[in-house]
Amino acid sequence: MSIPERFHFTHRRLVEFADTDLAGIMHFANFLRFVESAEHAFFRSLGFRVHVAGGAGQHGWPRLEVSCKYFKPARFEETLEICLHLEEIRTSSLRYGFWIFVADHPDRAPLAAGSCAIVHVALDGHARAMHKAPIPADLRRQLERLLAPAVSPN
Amino acid sequence: MSIPERFHFTHRRLVEFADTDLAGIMHFANFLRFVESAEHAFFRSLGFRVHVAGGAGQHGWPRLEVSCKYFKPARFEETLEICLHLEEIRTSSLRYGFWIFVADHPDRAPLAAGSCAIVHVALDGHARAMHKAPIPADLRRQLERLLAPAVSPN
Amino acid sequence: MSIPERFHFTHRRLVEFADTDLAGIMHFANFLRFVESAEHAFFRSLGFRVHVAGGAGQHGWPRLEVSCKYFKPARFEETLEICLHLEEIRTSSLRYGFWIFVADHPDRAPLAAGSCAIVHVALDGHARAMHKAPIPADLRRQLERLLAPAVSPN
Amino acid sequence: MSIPERFHFTHRRLVEFADTDLAGIMHFANFLRFVESAEHAFFRSLGFRVHVAGGAGQHGWPRLEVSCKYFKPARFEETLEICLHLEEIRTSSLRYGFWIFVADHPDRAPLAAGSCAIVHVALDGHARAMHKAPIPADLRRQLERLLAPAVSPN
Repeated sequence: MSIPERFHFTHRRLVEFADTDLAGIMHFANFLRFVESAEHAFFRSLGFRVHVAGGAGQHGWPRLEVSCKYFKPARFEETLEICLHLEEIRTSSLRYGFWIFVADHPDRAPLAAGSCAIVHVALDGHARAMHKAPIPADLRRQLERLLAPAVSPN
Repeated sequence: MSIPERFHFTHRRLVEFADTDLAGIMHFANFLRFVESAEHAFFRSLGFRVHVAGGAGQHGWPRLEVSCKYFKPARFEETLEICLHLEEIRTSSLRYGFWIFVADHPDRAPLAAGSCAIVHVALDGHARAMHKAPIPADLRRQLERLLAPAVSPN
Repeated sequence: MSIPERFHFTHRRLVEFADTDLAGIMHFANFLRFVESAEHAFFRSLGFRVHVAGGAGQHGWPRLEVSCKYFKPARFEETLEICLHLEEIRTSSLRYGFWIFVADHPDRAPLAAGSCAIVHVALDGHARAMHKAPIPADLRRQLERLLAPAVSPN
Repeated sequence: MSIPERFHFTHRRLVEFADTDLAGIMHFANFLRFVESAEHAFFRSLGFRVHVAGGAGQHGWPRLEVSCKYFKPARFEETLEICLHLEEIRTSSLRYGFWIFVADHPDRAPLAAGSCAIVHVALDGHARAMHKAPIPADLRRQLERLLAPAVSPN
């Protein structure tokens, strides 16, 4: 999984004390929380919210699959840069890769990298039932534009 | 806050790796998660669930107030004993004290102790609104029985 | 506990999806994580780090006591303002009050408020032993300046 | 990834309130905390601790890689069964698969499944440096015995 030349979204988040564990480093599961934060910030940047309740019912984006390789530990009070790269858009789901760096660090070797597939669902009755729902048209349009290859103007 | 002679409920829970922090000990906020686990186990032991969704609507028990004094750290792979003592039952709310010990440890000095006040609420529309609701009658009966002073049979 | 006219430090943090619980609101223990984040940002603003490892050994600031009253729920994607007010500085410990608001909200009624007492310690041998240590002189100077009553220049 | 006929270790853990999120189900990252709990219980069952501090220095088992597919949500107060299956033992690292079920449920379709690769390391100076370290000989012996195909006695 080579590092993309450019990312579709970059998010920053500080490693807090409560994110660390006994080994003196960020707990591995918290990398995935940071990725989720980045994803939600990405959605917000497009004018969407990952979780909507009320009115026409709840909608959400549960995970279908996550994977993560850990290369180097993240430490307390480091600011991490979580970089997202859209890989695939399907009817109800999408997949993105992520790369996590120490922000403003001369060494751009990632601490961790992986991918995440998420699916758009409608939730009925307080999550008692979930149904796949197509990605909303205007969100899809924006995502597809990001994925489109840059074309030369002539 | 002297330690009660007997507790109304005792719960055990292991300190997991993800509960620790950089200082090599359980993160302070996780003591309160352990207390919440004990409270929910206490409710289950009385045949109740702290959170009910569906049918007549959701009910829950949010916190009104928590306080905790920390005396000694809790360490990875220690089993903690979280001991609850009912202090007061009101129309919709109740208050209990808690004492946290290392289980099966000769030294019965608590690692931490505090108290917690919780309130019974009905949640409308996915927690958009919460209303105080009286403690259900059968739960109240059981709680009051626990609080009642032991009486001599003659 | 009336709201101070001015605070010694204000910190902002977003309520993330992973901070919420089944009741649709921020889990109560996460308020205390947010307070800890604010405290650490406060220390950083004074040029100090709450946890130092290596060289002269580890130093840290474990909690002696926390208390929190909960008035209103915090919701997903709300930015919270965590406001700190120093209350007392002792040889090795200090106490501050905190008030938590929804940022940029016209209603300045706090969602939660409480206080926190923390102690400066030296940690030996990976937290196997902790010893109270006086607050470093330069940190003390800065904290005392914040606590000092404003005096008229004439 | 077909479900193994038998597992090398099975661990049970209750979904607590604090494990859930706004969608009314266990937060996806907490599945990985549950897997870690199972792994540590597996190590304890073999007489080992995943994290050792003091004396000959700290040793630990950070993650190299995790992946998880999510099939169905886990709900508050469900007891989950986290089943581990050793896949590969190398000089310093090992890989296992995991399958997560609702305990005592007639439907044995997993809620989630994935794999995890972990590496044995020595930590110097409070995790400032980590070095790969061979799996201790007696732990290796036990792990290899678990991996060995059952042989007929004649």
